[in-house]
Amino acid sequence: LPAPRPRPEAAPQEPLPVGQEDGPLGRPVAQLLETYILAEAPDGALVLVDQHAAHERLTHEQLKAQLLDGEVRAQPLLIPAVVELPPADAARLLEAAPTLARLGLEIEDFGAATLLVRSLPALLGNPDPAPLLRDLCAELAEWEESTALERRLDAAIARLACHGSIRAGRRLNPAEMSALLRQMEATPRASTCSHGRPTWLRMGKAELEKLFGRR
Amino acid sequence: LPAPRPRPEAAPQEPLPVGQEDGPLGRPVAQLLETYILAEAPDGALVLVDQHAAHERLTHEQLKAQLLDGEVRAQPLLIPAVVELPPADAARLLEAAPTLARLGLEIEDFGAATLLVRSLPALLGNPDPAPLLRDLCAELAEWEESTALERRLDAAIARLACHGSIRAGRRLNPAEMSALLRQMEATPRASTCSHGRPTWLRMGKAELEKLFGRR
Repeated sequence: LPAPRPRPEAAPQEPLPVGQEDGPLGRPVAQLLETYILAEAPDGALVLVDQHAAHERLTHEQLKAQLLDGEVRAQPLLIPAVVELPPADAARLLEAAPTLARLGLEIEDFGAATLLVRSLPALLGNPDPAPLLRDLCAELAEWEESTALERRLDAAIARLACHGSIRAGRRLNPAEMSALLRQMEATPRASTCSHGRPTWLRMGKAELEKLFGRR
Repeated sequence: LPAPRPRPEAAPQEPLPVGQEDGPLGRPVAQLLETYILAEAPDGALVLVDQHAAHERLTHEQLKAQLLDGEVRAQPLLIPAVVELPPADAARLLEAAPTLARLGLEIEDFGAATLLVRSLPALLGNPDPAPLLRDLCAELAEWEESTALERRLDAAIARLACHGSIRAGRRLNPAEMSALLRQMEATPRASTCSHGRPTWLRMGKAELEKLFGRR
């Protein structure tokens, strides 16, 4: 069992001023439901961040930047992963193998509708290869003959980003929360995730006053 | 100038678990705009409290309880306050003096439309007597012949409570915030202020998911 932690009442803290260096998304003050980061903006507004949606966008943009630089950095697996799939799915993935290789995902035919995964995009950490491949396969199924390569790559990157991002349910400490907010401030399109959902919301003075019937 | 305070990043804190003893309004995590208390409920929901509205209700209920016990406790002023008013207002207040005395507010005619304030309800701390009297006068002007004494007293208590309560703009420390939340949990009608505005709002899992387009 973890050692008992001090009660907040036992060690009252002075509220910390929000520093200029915190940027517009502010200073993290708490994590809610292991899903949302609660922050206080420099002007005192309440900022709520969906940690998964936000991280997904960060991963997406980083993968894209690597691709534009030439190629997505791959992390070879020490022991290649063996993934069994429905035959049609295995065939579809193998057909796209040259495209996927540009994204750091190297696969090989292992026979009998089974694939060998030799590397994954380094940025993703250690995602489970099987659901990642199934999800990519769903993406490939949506591609039409006419889909431009650029659009295909971007769509594939979105799927990869989703698998490589911190999920709801992961507890973050203040330093991790702050790092995520600072990265969001420095990342283009950081206000929506790859699926277009908002990554953060803000409630300023006027909105709070309205909520409380103050105006 | 105050000494520089450590940055939150410099001393990362473990997120504290919400204790059972925190009650449904939860653990305070921050104050926003020196007006709202931000708390995390035991189930992880976000709780927002309007500090003035909440304290107003607490003061209101305490004054009422004292009145039901017999009389509101008065705090004699070391030096009686002298308040000049429009003649009609001074006359109206003096007419209500016996009623106001039951509320701990003792006033006397000082001649030339001037009143002497000898005591104030002890619960109110040290409010400025002049705006308090002007506000009570506005309340008295709304009374009709037919207004029952009980309703008059309750309306007067609401005005007094407003003047005796912490205002927006006062910085609260975590212990003060926690004390306010615990008192709210133990006070009847604590979910609206004397004017009927909400004192606290809650955003639970479902509401947050809706805000972020997660459902």
